[in-house]
Amino acid sequence: MSSVFNRGIKLSLFGESHGKGIGVVLDGLPAGEPVDFDEINAFMARRAPKKDGTSTMRNEKDSAEILSGIYENKTTGTPLAAVIYNSDQHSGDYGNIAHIARPAHADYTGFLRYKGANDPRGGGHFSGRITAPLCFAGAVCEQILKRRGITVGAHIYSVKNVKDTPFDPVNVTANQLEFVKSRPFPTLSENAETEMRELINSARTAQDSVGGIVECAAVGFPAGIGSPMLDGLENVISGLVFAIPAVKGIEFGNGFSCAELFGSENNDEFAVQNGKIVTKTNNHGGILGGISSGMPIIFRVAFKPTPSISRPQNSVDFKTMTEQELIIKGRHDPCVVPRAVPCVEAALNIALLSAMLENSNLEG
Amino acid sequence: MSSVFNRGIKLSLFGESHGKGIGVVLDGLPAGEPVDFDEINAFMARRAPKKDGTSTMRNEKDSAEILSGIYENKTTGTPLAAVIYNSDQHSGDYGNIAHIARPAHADYTGFLRYKGANDPRGGGHFSGRITAPLCFAGAVCEQILKRRGITVGAHIYSVKNVKDTPFDPVNVTANQLEFVKSRPFPTLSENAETEMRELINSARTAQDSVGGIVECAAVGFPAGIGSPMLDGLENVISGLVFAIPAVKGIEFGNGFSCAELFGSENNDEFAVQNGKIVTKTNNHGGILGGISSGMPIIFRVAFKPTPSISRPQNSVDFKTMTEQELIIKGRHDPCVVPRAVPCVEAALNIALLSAMLENSNLEG
Amino acid sequence: MSSVFNRGIKLSLFGESHGKGIGVVLDGLPAGEPVDFDEINAFMARRAPKKDGTSTMRNEKDSAEILSGIYENKTTGTPLAAVIYNSDQHSGDYGNIAHIARPAHADYTGFLRYKGANDPRGGGHFSGRITAPLCFAGAVCEQILKRRGITVGAHIYSVKNVKDTPFDPVNVTANQLEFVKSRPFPTLSENAETEMRELINSARTAQDSVGGIVECAAVGFPAGIGSPMLDGLENVISGLVFAIPAVKGIEFGNGFSCAELFGSENNDEFAVQNGKIVTKTNNHGGILGGISSGMPIIFRVAFKPTPSISRPQNSVDFKTMTEQELIIKGRHDPCVVPRAVPCVEAALNIALLSAMLENSNLEG
Amino acid sequence: MSSVFNRGIKLSLFGESHGKGIGVVLDGLPAGEPVDFDEINAFMARRAPKKDGTSTMRNEKDSAEILSGIYENKTTGTPLAAVIYNSDQHSGDYGNIAHIARPAHADYTGFLRYKGANDPRGGGHFSGRITAPLCFAGAVCEQILKRRGITVGAHIYSVKNVKDTPFDPVNVTANQLEFVKSRPFPTLSENAETEMRELINSARTAQDSVGGIVECAAVGFPAGIGSPMLDGLENVISGLVFAIPAVKGIEFGNGFSCAELFGSENNDEFAVQNGKIVTKTNNHGGILGGISSGMPIIFRVAFKPTPSISRPQNSVDFKTMTEQELIIKGRHDPCVVPRAVPCVEAALNIALLSAMLENSNLEG
Repeated sequence: MSSVFNRGIKLSLFGESHGKGIGVVLDGLPAGEPVDFDEINAFMARRAPKKDGTSTMRNEKDSAEILSGIYENKTTGTPLAAVIYNSDQHSGDYGNIAHIARPAHADYTGFLRYKGANDPRGGGHFSGRITAPLCFAGAVCEQILKRRGITVGAHIYSVKNVKDTPFDPVNVTANQLEFVKSRPFPTLSENAETEMRELINSARTAQDSVGGIVECAAVGFPAGIGSPMLDGLENVISGLVFAIPAVKGIEFGNGFSCAELFGSENNDEFAVQNGKIVTKTNNHGGILGGISSGMPIIFRVAFKPTPSISRPQNSVDFKTMTEQELIIKGRHDPCVVPRAVPCVEAALNIALLSAMLENSNLEG
Repeated sequence: MSSVFNRGIKLSLFGESHGKGIGVVLDGLPAGEPVDFDEINAFMARRAPKKDGTSTMRNEKDSAEILSGIYENKTTGTPLAAVIYNSDQHSGDYGNIAHIARPAHADYTGFLRYKGANDPRGGGHFSGRITAPLCFAGAVCEQILKRRGITVGAHIYSVKNVKDTPFDPVNVTANQLEFVKSRPFPTLSENAETEMRELINSARTAQDSVGGIVECAAVGFPAGIGSPMLDGLENVISGLVFAIPAVKGIEFGNGFSCAELFGSENNDEFAVQNGKIVTKTNNHGGILGGISSGMPIIFRVAFKPTPSISRPQNSVDFKTMTEQELIIKGRHDPCVVPRAVPCVEAALNIALLSAMLENSNLEG
Repeated sequence: MSSVFNRGIKLSLFGESHGKGIGVVLDGLPAGEPVDFDEINAFMARRAPKKDGTSTMRNEKDSAEILSGIYENKTTGTPLAAVIYNSDQHSGDYGNIAHIARPAHADYTGFLRYKGANDPRGGGHFSGRITAPLCFAGAVCEQILKRRGITVGAHIYSVKNVKDTPFDPVNVTANQLEFVKSRPFPTLSENAETEMRELINSARTAQDSVGGIVECAAVGFPAGIGSPMLDGLENVISGLVFAIPAVKGIEFGNGFSCAELFGSENNDEFAVQNGKIVTKTNNHGGILGGISSGMPIIFRVAFKPTPSISRPQNSVDFKTMTEQELIIKGRHDPCVVPRAVPCVEAALNIALLSAMLENSNLEG
Repeated sequence: MSSVFNRGIKLSLFGESHGKGIGVVLDGLPAGEPVDFDEINAFMARRAPKKDGTSTMRNEKDSAEILSGIYENKTTGTPLAAVIYNSDQHSGDYGNIAHIARPAHADYTGFLRYKGANDPRGGGHFSGRITAPLCFAGAVCEQILKRRGITVGAHIYSVKNVKDTPFDPVNVTANQLEFVKSRPFPTLSENAETEMRELINSARTAQDSVGGIVECAAVGFPAGIGSPMLDGLENVISGLVFAIPAVKGIEFGNGFSCAELFGSENNDEFAVQNGKIVTKTNNHGGILGGISSGMPIIFRVAFKPTPSISRPQNSVDFKTMTEQELIIKGRHDPCVVPRAVPCVEAALNIALLSAMLENSNLEG
């Protein structure tokens, strides 16, 4: 019914693409945590549109204004509210398609759900722009996790048929995650970057778009966090990841490919290494029975091609119930995947901090 | 922290494999809904172990006793509690492996999470057996949905590399879903059944196990149900599906394969058919922006091979921190997929009824 | 919509007065906590009907059967389910009043809410009997709190115009709370007991009933637990206390009488005592800004007279919409207050443990 | 852990008294509801400080800026975010008392709860100022309820020992509620106003403060809304009312006075009036078994005297653990009750709309 995540961390996301502002209230944060705004801005800049041809030309500042919850650069422990004002609004671009459902968009379903009263400009509350406050929330959580030795990072696993070097599920390191996050186009392989950029450019030129996959990992996350059944880490992570528009699937560890294996191939044997229990392989992706095993947490998320393409498409005016040809104007990413990378990280940062806060300790 | 699902439908699952009983409290159900217990038992029988070599020999009756919430064969609207007593408990089979972590099981993570206090017999609360009350809850919801013209059904999409005929995402019908549910081994193709059975048998003979994929669909579900962002149908469905042990991934519509498409290939164009808005293709799987489109809802779920295999495996005694060889005795399914089919349906039935209840209507 | 409490502790209450059984699923409990069943039974016996003329003659055993969540007499940390089977059911007593609304009961409102489908026998889910599983849950939490030096206790503050000696809000001790809990009729003053018993007996003789007030306290509860605004201790405690049928009001500290004071009279000045911050008076009842102050937590709860009285009453048959005279047969307490005492304690035990679990500690 | 209300209506309150802004995210609202901002401002003006000597001189505009959720003056159905910027901040007034606990305030408990990191200026998140966004939310809900024939209103029931004419629990009308809301000092009796004003003025002159009671009612609320046990209307209403600082107690219907009655006096007999079931008296306050009866909903809320008084008080510096005399400077209401009236209404408006939204209708 809502845009509320209500667990160890409480998240209330709000905003419409062309309204006054978008933002988030983030509650349940531990008190007294230093907040570095340069790091937050750097995190959010990774989601912001690029001028390199891979994304929309919309000039968003996306700088979050803090309304509450931070005092003397530390979390107060009470609700942290942040707003990003919408300044660069070209509503006119959308006027002519208001009632013609853009294929693969939520225009029609949103119209039904909200009886025609939702804000249609730029996708309204369905806009990918609402991932900006999600990234803000994730950036705050990231700093709290990092202080406890936990690093989250993601990369572009694939764009269409071009694949990056995958993370090594056993040996991925915090340094590697930091490295890939520092790259303007977050791949591990420079060759992959080149090929992917070409692919995205050619899609753009062809008035088309492409999909891809983001791979995300966390290292340093302690073993024993999470719960079985309905409160497992997979449940919580996927519950947040599907909040990112254009996500069509999620898989943990070796994911769908485990369905083609024998148990003797898929089972990760346990061993003792430096006095610590590990698994020799990490097909399980760091989660067993909903609970962290101490191995790197790894999952992949499939993104569909950007629905907005400039080619003429057949569609329906859902007010008049007539079939119409649709031409979408305006600014659109030919591929959402590069900008989706920090969004997936944000979801994981929030999920992990939330799970740690839920594993409370009466003696603590 | 818990086994609670708290939305339009409230679900509180409980139980351990070798405790007194397992069960569920199901709250938020509409009042006055007739409940057919033969249908419930038939639903649960599909999850029960088979005597055809594809599953464990454990002789579970799995008949749920109703403690509350049903009066004169109708829901009262107050909490419905159901218990399945554990009668056939062979705890002795598990004694010798209590502290040696079974690979791909939650023995070690559960031990950490619960400080060694959780019930270790037969996996305790982590046992696949806890899907029996999930199926009970799903079977109750199924009847309420069916009365409103909504049919949910699933089939074995694949076992290892053997694939069944997939559902047609546009034209799948209620009849087809009912047909496949009526089959003892739920595939659309008889050839697929034969091959899959052979594969499972050969895995069993080889003291091994195999994974696979379940495909699930709903037809007749009204358009306009669900919400954007954190309360989307995908969020809710995946939050329930990951409660089923052994699930490693979920994808909606064309899922991960959309990541390899152009937008022009992936976008589902709208059309008017018999006065109703439809899409010509259904790559989106019946959900746009978290909200149902009126097209069939389709998703696939990847199951790993059964972790329990009889072959010797290397592992660690997590109490003594020593490496040990492990031999798992007892009864185990060589493939969980056939019995997982109704579990996935149960998750969808619960999710859909829950979403409908949340789309409340002040005028209603 | 439901009977679910979903906080640090998760509670799912179920059952109808004359159904198969009533019970509770209690989730979020810390793992490895010893559970003493004699103490639980003793707690529940305080709620059970007495044979001393103060309560109904219904012969309830009210012994809870544990279905899950306890292993080797300790909490497993996974959901604890307990059932109390209904054995002594005299449904016949209620047959003739099924559709004539008993004044001050929920017959009519329940009929509307559940469209006539709720179980009408003995009040169904509205029965005071559902406080038995609440007491079970409270008794489990009580043991966990006690182990940490926290004691909860309540007494009969008043029956009609007869008052017991109130708790001293500053100096009430754990011993005093244990003492009053050990008394068959929980008052501090023996004179008050004598007068109250006479009052209750005379009400019974007059085919009437009487109301009263329960006062409840906790000592040893650490300072700094709870949250401002919507998650304050008062919010959580009152949210649980109003689950007890017949409660009409709740007040913390000096409660309604503070409305007649000057600030200079009501403010509790702080002082240092034995190196600890205390207040010299305790008008605030141990809670400031929703958070515990370290002083005893004190509140009072008003109970209305038992609605069921044997005198003829005027009412309405809500099926035929005709006015009718009603004569209630069956067994009824002339005063619910003595049996309500452990129910109020149960609510506080659950609320306090829940709040402690929510004050989680990342470093813990 | 937080300031989140998560039911049919979802509320996320945020802000600190001297931070950038305070506000609320309000989710779950029905779509397409017209919003009249003049009415909202009028509602909030009733909470704003008065220049008549009854309240602080702080010059707050308290005009809410809408960030999202309203489009063309109607609710979009997606989250409505509103901010009130803090402009008139005199932080300097509070500097010298930062670590000396103000009696009856949350300075000390907040310091413990948030490990000294919370914003201490003007009470921070504990400030009564956070009721401004609560009033905003209540004002939005009020308009949606009014459109369905439901009117909520409150008056000053008492200030210290001076009492207003109470509402007639059976015959209170929408007109009477509207009348009392329109009065600058909301009493039914003009004499009561005069006496109360004198009392408040004399308290102010004496550098003191006084407490009082607010009585609140709703008429036109349909019968059959709410649920038994943990989700009763009393549970939900009290869960919201205790979010208002200074509340020490709540009672429904005849409240604590029912504890002094016989059942034969307290029971409300049913009757048929104009083809509708009513009760002849309304001691139950419109709620039976947690569910509305169709009679006026009535309750009273006790407010303690404003904790901030200018007289010297004894207290403790909780950083140095030394006893100190405290003199509170700054602006303070000698009585919070007049400004609390719309806050209590706001809580009821939110609770009632939320409950209606939870009583969803599958057929709706």
